[in-house]
Amino acid sequence: MSVPRLYLAGPDVFAPDAIAIGRQKQAICVELGAIGLFPLDNAPPPEGLSRHDLARHIYRDNIDLMRGADGCVANLSPFRGPNADDGTAFEVGWMIAAGKPVFGHVDDPRALAERSAMPGGLDAQGRPVDADGWWVEDFGWPVNLMLVAGIERSGGQVMVQASGAPRLDAFRQAVTAAVRCCAG
Amino acid sequence: MSVPRLYLAGPDVFAPDAIAIGRQKQAICVELGAIGLFPLDNAPPPEGLSRHDLARHIYRDNIDLMRGADGCVANLSPFRGPNADDGTAFEVGWMIAAGKPVFGHVDDPRALAERSAMPGGLDAQGRPVDADGWWVEDFGWPVNLMLVAGIERSGGQVMVQASGAPRLDAFRQAVTAAVRCCAG
Repeated sequence: MSVPRLYLAGPDVFAPDAIAIGRQKQAICVELGAIGLFPLDNAPPPEGLSRHDLARHIYRDNIDLMRGADGCVANLSPFRGPNADDGTAFEVGWMIAAGKPVFGHVDDPRALAERSAMPGGLDAQGRPVDADGWWVEDFGWPVNLMLVAGIERSGGQVMVQASGAPRLDAFRQAVTAAVRCCAG
Repeated sequence: MSVPRLYLAGPDVFAPDAIAIGRQKQAICVELGAIGLFPLDNAPPPEGLSRHDLARHIYRDNIDLMRGADGCVANLSPFRGPNADDGTAFEVGWMIAAGKPVFGHVDDPRALAERSAMPGGLDAQGRPVDADGWWVEDFGWPVNLMLVAGIERSGGQVMVQASGAPRLDAFRQAVTAAVRCCAG
């Protein structure tokens, strides 16, 4: 039984302590019997690339890491608003279409509607809406239905961080489930 | 030469006038020589489903529409924050991994960094950061690099709405390019 390789998707790469977060997540993976592939582990890009070519280089590196992974553990926590990071959501969709199981973890224990809807705001059909009057989907899930239902159908699961649980607890649960799935 | 079928992804489905927007976009598709597949055109779900089963039903319907499409035209405009809608980003990743060309349109003419970074905020490496000190990627593109570079490699392109251009102008450009690509 080989050690599963898990692509660690998430906006963590933008954090001030991105490298430290990656190391910590990878240590948890090792402890739980997996190899964590973190985007910032890619070799530094060649010097002298234009901004656009640098972006293209990073894209190709990330796709290569995803291709070489057995599954994905994605940080779907709210990022610069109530929703998951769009780059991460892209990667989740890509991995699912590629037939790989995805596991999610979310830091915010609230449901998406609770986090996004205007308190007491309802549209003419009685559906919750945001401050602009746009419908907020209300399926009792922590993130957008495409993410949760897609993850479920891939064989994965979304883990929500319980209030007061130790840091990265939902991540740890997601890796545990991913190892069980990918090694099974 | 058959008429290309384009999946119309985007947070438009949450708008108060979602049905009207869908009709309008589909009329533009017809005018430009395509069939627009809009998620709200799916048959109404069976009665009596639980909230979670309803969400799963919508997911499967959307995936079926995507499977039957020749390409995708995705609304990547900022949604509830500076980033693209996460459900849309999921669909873009899925379509690209499925080997279909994706075209994007963005309402906001600003680059992602311009829209997201704190004015004058730089980290120790001189990179733009948001109000929380997190790095904002700065490649001069309108949305996250995974979306733009992925769309490019799929054979597609991201169209940005010019200030003062008529409503849905960038959408129209995206459909025009998609028709050229999918019928070519």
